[in-house]
Amino acid sequence: MFILVSEVGPRDGLQSIRRAMPTEAKIRWIGALAAAGLREIEVGSFVNPRKLPQMADATEVVRAALAIPGLTVMALAPNLRGAQAAAEAGVRKVTMPVSASNAHSLANIGVSTDRAIGQVGEVVAWRDTLPAGARPEIEIGISTAFGCTIEGPVAEDHVIDVAVRLAQAGADSVGLSDGVGTANPAQVKRLFTRLRAELGDKAGGAHLHNTRGQGLANVVAALDAGVTTFDASQGGIGGCPYSPGATGNIVTEDLVWMLEAMGLDTGVDLDRLAAARAILEEALPGEPVYGHLPDVGTEKGFRYAGGRAAVEGSGRAHRQGVPA
Amino acid sequence: MFILVSEVGPRDGLQSIRRAMPTEAKIRWIGALAAAGLREIEVGSFVNPRKLPQMADATEVVRAALAIPGLTVMALAPNLRGAQAAAEAGVRKVTMPVSASNAHSLANIGVSTDRAIGQVGEVVAWRDTLPAGARPEIEIGISTAFGCTIEGPVAEDHVIDVAVRLAQAGADSVGLSDGVGTANPAQVKRLFTRLRAELGDKAGGAHLHNTRGQGLANVVAALDAGVTTFDASQGGIGGCPYSPGATGNIVTEDLVWMLEAMGLDTGVDLDRLAAARAILEEALPGEPVYGHLPDVGTEKGFRYAGGRAAVEGSGRAHRQGVPA
Repeated sequence: MFILVSEVGPRDGLQSIRRAMPTEAKIRWIGALAAAGLREIEVGSFVNPRKLPQMADATEVVRAALAIPGLTVMALAPNLRGAQAAAEAGVRKVTMPVSASNAHSLANIGVSTDRAIGQVGEVVAWRDTLPAGARPEIEIGISTAFGCTIEGPVAEDHVIDVAVRLAQAGADSVGLSDGVGTANPAQVKRLFTRLRAELGDKAGGAHLHNTRGQGLANVVAALDAGVTTFDASQGGIGGCPYSPGATGNIVTEDLVWMLEAMGLDTGVDLDRLAAARAILEEALPGEPVYGHLPDVGTEKGFRYAGGRAAVEGSGRAHRQGVPA
Repeated sequence: MFILVSEVGPRDGLQSIRRAMPTEAKIRWIGALAAAGLREIEVGSFVNPRKLPQMADATEVVRAALAIPGLTVMALAPNLRGAQAAAEAGVRKVTMPVSASNAHSLANIGVSTDRAIGQVGEVVAWRDTLPAGARPEIEIGISTAFGCTIEGPVAEDHVIDVAVRLAQAGADSVGLSDGVGTANPAQVKRLFTRLRAELGDKAGGAHLHNTRGQGLANVVAALDAGVTTFDASQGGIGGCPYSPGATGNIVTEDLVWMLEAMGLDTGVDLDRLAAARAILEEALPGEPVYGHLPDVGTEKGFRYAGGRAAVEGSGRAHRQGVPA
């Protein structure tokens, strides 16, 4: 069985880091991630460059990524203007931020949840006017689906209601996001089970964080509910408002190891992933990166889901200047 | 539903740290762990004190722990002599190391797997000669049940065979242990399902490590298989042969947060657990301790399984000299 690991480091990760990765390094990093077997990468964000100067080169990065064969190039856009810029750059999938919590929606993108759903409808209507080959897919991961740092618990009925309205507004895929890192496995299984029952083919993937160490545990729960797409970021960069160790996104390296060990095919090679990590670490020296697999490597006898054997210690990161 | 969190830090954790925690601090720490609601604690190891000087005070620590009302005092003993010393000290549960991998068994305790099973039989036979109130339970967590650093993969049929032989030898409880940190959730679910089918009431708990970041994911898989007892160590200390971040045991704090958030009652209070962590950190200054929950605390609206609300940020560790 194939599980799609959707790499969000170049967008969600880099956007949380104050300094900008040079465009040239971004392009090299994205190339290395794709060479490792990642088939979908969120490469940038089409937002106001004064607000997020780290993403000011989104068009250039998208264009370079489009040259990589077989890669689905994804980008974030908060509204119609952003979606138009993304589509013009050639983005194949546009992800739009919609938060189940109204307070979070206002704080994050300056509009209410209702208005954000309305914007999705506007983007879909405009998208449908484009020629058939030029229409990007519109994908939503509902933020604060598992709880909100401002409002606290979010009613599950409300989350499902928002999801249904987004599907009705024409979104191609609606997933659930735990960007604040409060989700637990029981809740993840419950909500994705309901989402899939309500939305069928439009039910999307899981965007999970590791803020309380529960990231991969939530992956197991989501797999149980039938989820087959998971966002992750190399080195766990992104969305980390707390102290070291309190990582943000689930770590691509650890996720790939776990899925492959479980017999679930990701198409990703851990050694090539380590090579991509070296580019990230070199381009942002001193920036904290996370993950267990890069420290210890694969175990003796590890095999990829497809049966291919790995040398013991595969996927281990070899940091420059740091003895192994 | 109640889940037993069996705290192994004072044995498995401290035994992996070269310097010894002073006896007085051990006793204070164990008291604080029990005060946090942990009902079973592995407090020491009855082994050759020349090999493990950190455990030389096991008798004294056991006696102090026995004074704590309602606490199940557990200790490790590798053989009959150790089990006799443990029982004499008053230990209620003796855990014996048996490895499914013969090579690991030889490296770890100097005898083969077959001989280790034989030793369990000897201990049980001797134990049964004791007066009814003085008989400790004999508990095994089969090491390398999910793979071995020396032999590589371990056949699942062999693991189940070892488990059945241990139950036949008279062990009261036989669990599965991933001390080397290679287990994945699919394997954990499969093996515990078989173990419970074969051993019934004698099927024991899970001893899981977080070496590849998969510790809590494996807990979710074991819960799915019906496991209700989990070893963990405060701060994740123990069994960490690698670099920082590659933690050993699953972290008690993170496990308790996850279980309670899932609606599974552990009886443990996260704030009191943070107070116990302060004793650990003070007694072993500079020693790496792990865990996400102690960094970020509970989320807004967190409730214990029993319904009790916690203040946002509950369970966060307040390190001396480190600004929050």
